[in-house]
Amino acid sequence: MPLSEMNQKDCRAFLAGASLARLACSFNDQPYVVPIYFAYEPDFVYVLSTFGQKTEWMHANPKVCLQVDEIADQANWASVIAMGTYEELPEPEFSEEREHARKLLSSRYRWWLNAMAERQLKQGTDTINPLFFRIKIDSMTGLRASS
Amino acid sequence: MPLSEMNQKDCRAFLAGASLARLACSFNDQPYVVPIYFAYEPDFVYVLSTFGQKTEWMHANPKVCLQVDEIADQANWASVIAMGTYEELPEPEFSEEREHARKLLSSRYRWWLNAMAERQLKQGTDTINPLFFRIKIDSMTGLRASS
Repeated sequence: MPLSEMNQKDCRAFLAGASLARLACSFNDQPYVVPIYFAYEPDFVYVLSTFGQKTEWMHANPKVCLQVDEIADQANWASVIAMGTYEELPEPEFSEEREHARKLLSSRYRWWLNAMAERQLKQGTDTINPLFFRIKIDSMTGLRASS
Repeated sequence: MPLSEMNQKDCRAFLAGASLARLACSFNDQPYVVPIYFAYEPDFVYVLSTFGQKTEWMHANPKVCLQVDEIADQANWASVIAMGTYEELPEPEFSEEREHARKLLSSRYRWWLNAMAERQLKQGTDTINPLFFRIKIDSMTGLRASS
């Protein structure tokens, strides 16, 4: 099972081709990890989410870790781990960035946004209002195994 | 996209049928998340790993979060999140538990153990010595979406 480290260019290409990640945050040193959909552009990861525990925790402690993998089996896989910083995109200071995130994510996840909108309409709740945020990537490492 | 909460029985059945998880730990409130293979028995998750950053961090702060999912697409998925406590299985106090973990994991991951042993033989390094630990599950929640 030869293991090889991925260089920064490989890590960036891997994130650019992926859409599903696991995002970990932490509060009072209790970690919390959830699956998310994202779009990557150097050096940011844009995320479409809903309000909830993770956004509350990241608001309190913006240090996060993002993990993206492709796992064929125990001997053939690649995994990239990025340390980063949570950035909310409040109006009006970040109107441009928010619009950019919205466009970037809408083109990929239109179906999901429609489903969320439909559900919100039915239930009349704000908790599933789509929320856009981004993560500034501070460092990245990647590892690849192939048999 | 109807969402439903999984009850404790559903969560346990889901973990029992899975083998791949993402494990998050945290040190100085910097989270870190990695993919791991595991075997579940109420109320513990047994993990086969190697030494490295995650084991150092969990040694320093045993609070962890384990996330297991099956994601078909954005509208059809299930995800279970377990909060737990890292437990090393040092000799001689935990000889029995360690042997139990070894048996449980060896039967599932024999191929991987052999590959690790072979690699260790070639490289003569202890860093890829297989390490067994377990996570005591303190609480679990699960969510399922189906279109």
